[in-house]
Amino acid sequence: MLEIYETKERVTADNDKAAAETRVKLKENKTFFVNLMASPGAGKTTLLKQTIAALKDKYRIGVMEADVDSAVDAAEIEKTGVRVIQLHSGGLCHMDADMTQRGLEKLDIEGLDLVFLENIGNLVCPAEFDVGAQMKAMILSVPEGDDKPLKYPLMFQVSNVVLVNKIDALPVFDFDKERFEKNVKTRNEKAPVIYLSALTGENVGAWTSYLEEAIENWRKNA
Amino acid sequence: MLEIYETKERVTADNDKAAAETRVKLKENKTFFVNLMASPGAGKTTLLKQTIAALKDKYRIGVMEADVDSAVDAAEIEKTGVRVIQLHSGGLCHMDADMTQRGLEKLDIEGLDLVFLENIGNLVCPAEFDVGAQMKAMILSVPEGDDKPLKYPLMFQVSNVVLVNKIDALPVFDFDKERFEKNVKTRNEKAPVIYLSALTGENVGAWTSYLEEAIENWRKNA
Repeated sequence: MLEIYETKERVTADNDKAAAETRVKLKENKTFFVNLMASPGAGKTTLLKQTIAALKDKYRIGVMEADVDSAVDAAEIEKTGVRVIQLHSGGLCHMDADMTQRGLEKLDIEGLDLVFLENIGNLVCPAEFDVGAQMKAMILSVPEGDDKPLKYPLMFQVSNVVLVNKIDALPVFDFDKERFEKNVKTRNEKAPVIYLSALTGENVGAWTSYLEEAIENWRKNA
Repeated sequence: MLEIYETKERVTADNDKAAAETRVKLKENKTFFVNLMASPGAGKTTLLKQTIAALKDKYRIGVMEADVDSAVDAAEIEKTGVRVIQLHSGGLCHMDADMTQRGLEKLDIEGLDLVFLENIGNLVCPAEFDVGAQMKAMILSVPEGDDKPLKYPLMFQVSNVVLVNKIDALPVFDFDKERFEKNVKTRNEKAPVIYLSALTGENVGAWTSYLEEAIENWRKNA
């Protein structure tokens, strides 16, 4: 006996105005802004460190580390030498456009070419809030399973690119690439799927090339 | 340069009344209610299936599968033969006491000894909402990393027991049990940590024994 019982629709916050303001400021500054989203432990910080290592000679990079609590990730990113601030969401499961705007002011984007927001570890809430980024990148790690697009539809739907991390662990998990890509397609026909290992560095170049191309295209049109 | 920038405190919903009502009904029915929480892909459904297999001859079991979308998990649980319903949160990242109350009515706890809520895959929001359960059990899977108590403090703080799943994957991940337990202790001095593999069944008995004991103790005092 299987029943479907629908509960109330989420009342989505209107944060479009703040997101639009952020986009204007980014354009004026020629700063490309990436909203990086994933589950807890999917490898956001590790991939960010790899990305910084690959691109820091080409771009002046800034990072906003958002967390419910702690400054563990910011301390890690600080070691790379880029400009970094820690944002605390005060218990919230996402960053909204207003908090992000204040974060960007604190970070000071003046002179930065590329800014990352490492969002709160969560596959639900961050997907609902446009923070004004030019790119929404999500990470799904192999141990989380290939069925996640079915269960967290919005995250896959809104992402411009889907990064599958921890491919070094593929041999020990039942993760079927074909099934995963089929599931992604049901939510998002456009987003490319890039498989990589932030730990070993395998195929991280495919992601950083994708990002570079997006930045250059945006600059041409901005 | 590392700065800490605090954003607004979450306005917590007042759902204590509904949770208290649920507790009264559960007591009248002698139904023990477990709120199972974890990240996406931590192994909630797989562990639930193992738990049902171990306890279904002893207790009459019911399950509420909460998801943002899809009925993948409910279909899996249905195969075990227990009473199951699928709840959709309509985009919300957690179940609150009101939704849970309506779910329990739909499920119909009459004649059930043990009910599980498989909460939305999320380490943030579900921790904030008392749904009226007698036990809050959380799962943290090995690939997520041993630093998670630092980053998701409330979840560890409110849980009665911490289940560490996917120990079969310990050889391929840098997960230090000692460091993890130390991190858990900073948030919660009481909650026992139980290591298991829902996939292979290893040490699942430690969890089901813990649960049985909690149920019997509750019945004695209820």
